[in-house]
Amino acid sequence: MAVRAGVVVTGTEVLSGRVTDQNGPWVARQLLEMGVDVAHITVCGDRPADLTAQLQFLADQRVDLIITTGGLGPTADDLTVATVAALCGRALHLDIELEQRIDAIVQRWRSRMSTAIDSEPLNAGIRKQAMVPAGALSIAPTGTAPGVAIPATGELPAILILPGPPRELQEMWPDALETAPVAEALANRAEVRQSTIRAYGLSEADLAATLRAAELKVSGFDDLEITTCLRLGELEMVTRYPDSADAAYAKLVTQVAESHGKQIFSTDGSTIDDIVAHRLSGRRIATAESCTGGMIAARLTDRAGSSAYVIGGVVSYSNEVKSGILGVPPEMISEHGAVSEPVAAAMAEGAREGLGTDIAVSTTGVAGPGGGTELKPVGTVCFGIAVSGRATVTRTLHLSGDRASVRALSTAAAMHMLANALA
Amino acid sequence: MAVRAGVVVTGTEVLSGRVTDQNGPWVARQLLEMGVDVAHITVCGDRPADLTAQLQFLADQRVDLIITTGGLGPTADDLTVATVAALCGRALHLDIELEQRIDAIVQRWRSRMSTAIDSEPLNAGIRKQAMVPAGALSIAPTGTAPGVAIPATGELPAILILPGPPRELQEMWPDALETAPVAEALANRAEVRQSTIRAYGLSEADLAATLRAAELKVSGFDDLEITTCLRLGELEMVTRYPDSADAAYAKLVTQVAESHGKQIFSTDGSTIDDIVAHRLSGRRIATAESCTGGMIAARLTDRAGSSAYVIGGVVSYSNEVKSGILGVPPEMISEHGAVSEPVAAAMAEGAREGLGTDIAVSTTGVAGPGGGTELKPVGTVCFGIAVSGRATVTRTLHLSGDRASVRALSTAAAMHMLANALA
Repeated sequence: MAVRAGVVVTGTEVLSGRVTDQNGPWVARQLLEMGVDVAHITVCGDRPADLTAQLQFLADQRVDLIITTGGLGPTADDLTVATVAALCGRALHLDIELEQRIDAIVQRWRSRMSTAIDSEPLNAGIRKQAMVPAGALSIAPTGTAPGVAIPATGELPAILILPGPPRELQEMWPDALETAPVAEALANRAEVRQSTIRAYGLSEADLAATLRAAELKVSGFDDLEITTCLRLGELEMVTRYPDSADAAYAKLVTQVAESHGKQIFSTDGSTIDDIVAHRLSGRRIATAESCTGGMIAARLTDRAGSSAYVIGGVVSYSNEVKSGILGVPPEMISEHGAVSEPVAAAMAEGAREGLGTDIAVSTTGVAGPGGGTELKPVGTVCFGIAVSGRATVTRTLHLSGDRASVRALSTAAAMHMLANALA
Repeated sequence: MAVRAGVVVTGTEVLSGRVTDQNGPWVARQLLEMGVDVAHITVCGDRPADLTAQLQFLADQRVDLIITTGGLGPTADDLTVATVAALCGRALHLDIELEQRIDAIVQRWRSRMSTAIDSEPLNAGIRKQAMVPAGALSIAPTGTAPGVAIPATGELPAILILPGPPRELQEMWPDALETAPVAEALANRAEVRQSTIRAYGLSEADLAATLRAAELKVSGFDDLEITTCLRLGELEMVTRYPDSADAAYAKLVTQVAESHGKQIFSTDGSTIDDIVAHRLSGRRIATAESCTGGMIAARLTDRAGSSAYVIGGVVSYSNEVKSGILGVPPEMISEHGAVSEPVAAAMAEGAREGLGTDIAVSTTGVAGPGGGTELKPVGTVCFGIAVSGRATVTRTLHLSGDRASVRALSTAAAMHMLANALA
């Protein structure tokens, strides 16, 4: 039997859709990589009754470990520890040493703050954060909130209580895994491998047809747990399998590569960003962006160390910048329109020459919702790739969706064109 | 009693943390704005038993409406309709008219696809998508998948089944609300107002102290359901209240404004992006970005119609672009360092003059993880705002967190500096 876990994300701001939860997905990825099966993620607000109901639900589902995130702050609406303790029938006691530890952290922070803070509520908050359920282990805080690990009983699974701020949670994770309650809950997990194939420009239907054929040809196919997901033109196929299915997975990869070798760009988990960064090593790149408005430059510089190859870029949103800084002839713009392959080529060449790089990428398109014409409807985007010593390559795509979608798809497309040009 | 809803998000890619769910938050926001209380959001994979367990959990919690998202595709792992129908004890029947309708949509798509697709699985998929539970209403597809609305019974709440692609779901939403099962489930909802106050540079502790004081001073405070949330330096305070608490909310706003008037930038729901766009009307803006690498330009051009005021920008990631395109004197860089207020000022002025705009904003900083020094540690970011006819303003912030955090906080800070400079 696989080891199963459930995750409870707390916070009214998450439940009400105002803040995107980062903790549930992060925790799920860690657990899956460790070979733990994530059965449920639930989100609740700050109401103890709803939190209790979700915890009881996961206990009823016989998960081996429940992980909660959030609700460990010093204020009255942070109720996770008290609610979990009540469900477990464990009294809370004050851990004096922990209280002193949190107090020291808060005093350090306080000394850097400009505003005066009431001492009484502050001390009450610290005391509240230092309350630990009987028989539970406290995990050293990485912010001010300690984590809590509660051992499994006959009726309830082990429960790991983690703070809400993603950085605090992630820093605490290694310590949390080492606590006896968590280590025991996960002791029987299977070693599971997870491998990813990524393709660009491949449809889900085509991959599904290949997988149906592989099901008949690949022995041991049933041991492979395959999920596919299409995002911004990239089709990701993730397979989880036990060590014993290594050979089956290798055969599957061969089958998929035979049918879709042209579209597959990664079989080792690397992303298109990894590939572009790797291929840019020792070269210099510049960008010239119109409809993507800086998104390609932002994506390239998202990576630590990108200053080694990103020289800079120009966001030529107006035609005057296309001509003034990138040197696109105004008559070319009036003849072909700003959204055209000649202009895309001239933008890329202008950026490459002007910024003195080995390669440059350009985008000019109609992101919408306005600006579309019959000949160049919303979603029409022209790309240029200029490489020193080679003829500039251009391409036009017709991308679907709203403004945000067209811009995101354009950025992804530019990354793939760069990867190809650098190969 | 408030009308309560629960949302079930299906999809292994969401449960495993590979894809960020957009549907749960979007549906939650719509419901809250309508005065429906969202009690739970749950996420499950493609296993029918887990989905059934979550649906039963929400039914046991006595919600009035369950909304599911995803799992309506044509393939075998799309199981939502069949699973819900089984739970409700409703047989599935083929809706011939619906089948023809989906077939027509698929044929249109197919004619645009380059690859050949097997007809048999395709037709089986269409037939599957046209299966409707007995007594349920089907909702016209906006992609290929129709929605389904099932009336409440004594044992189960009304269930609304929606497709997974966010655009399809959102387009279907108005029709879904009008179906009898959903309209009846939500008939008794209370009219609720939701108002938002946004502040920048205000700590949660300071706002909490003001709210504690307001609790004593404002009569009717208990009718106000207040949640606060800090994100990228912005503190958002959302209050939900019945019409009858209008006066109490107005008094609360006065109290908060008296204490934190300087930090509050919005009381009418507008975001900093709305404010910057509004204030840019009739003016022209340029950007000069180093550590934010295009993020400010991308954010400004994220908005439809931004071409009216965004002229363009320069990503001057390397010093040669700072000097070459923006005209920052090389000796200024060697004297003060690239991360310095004089360089930030020169970048902003260079962009404003070079691109011929009324205003320009610049960033130059140490985003990390490398590049920090004792004097300029990671997180040190200098900003410049150049406005025609005024002295250029500069500022240095020390931002916390990792590379992504420093870049995001810098972008947010630049937006607030722009709003102030344009006021």
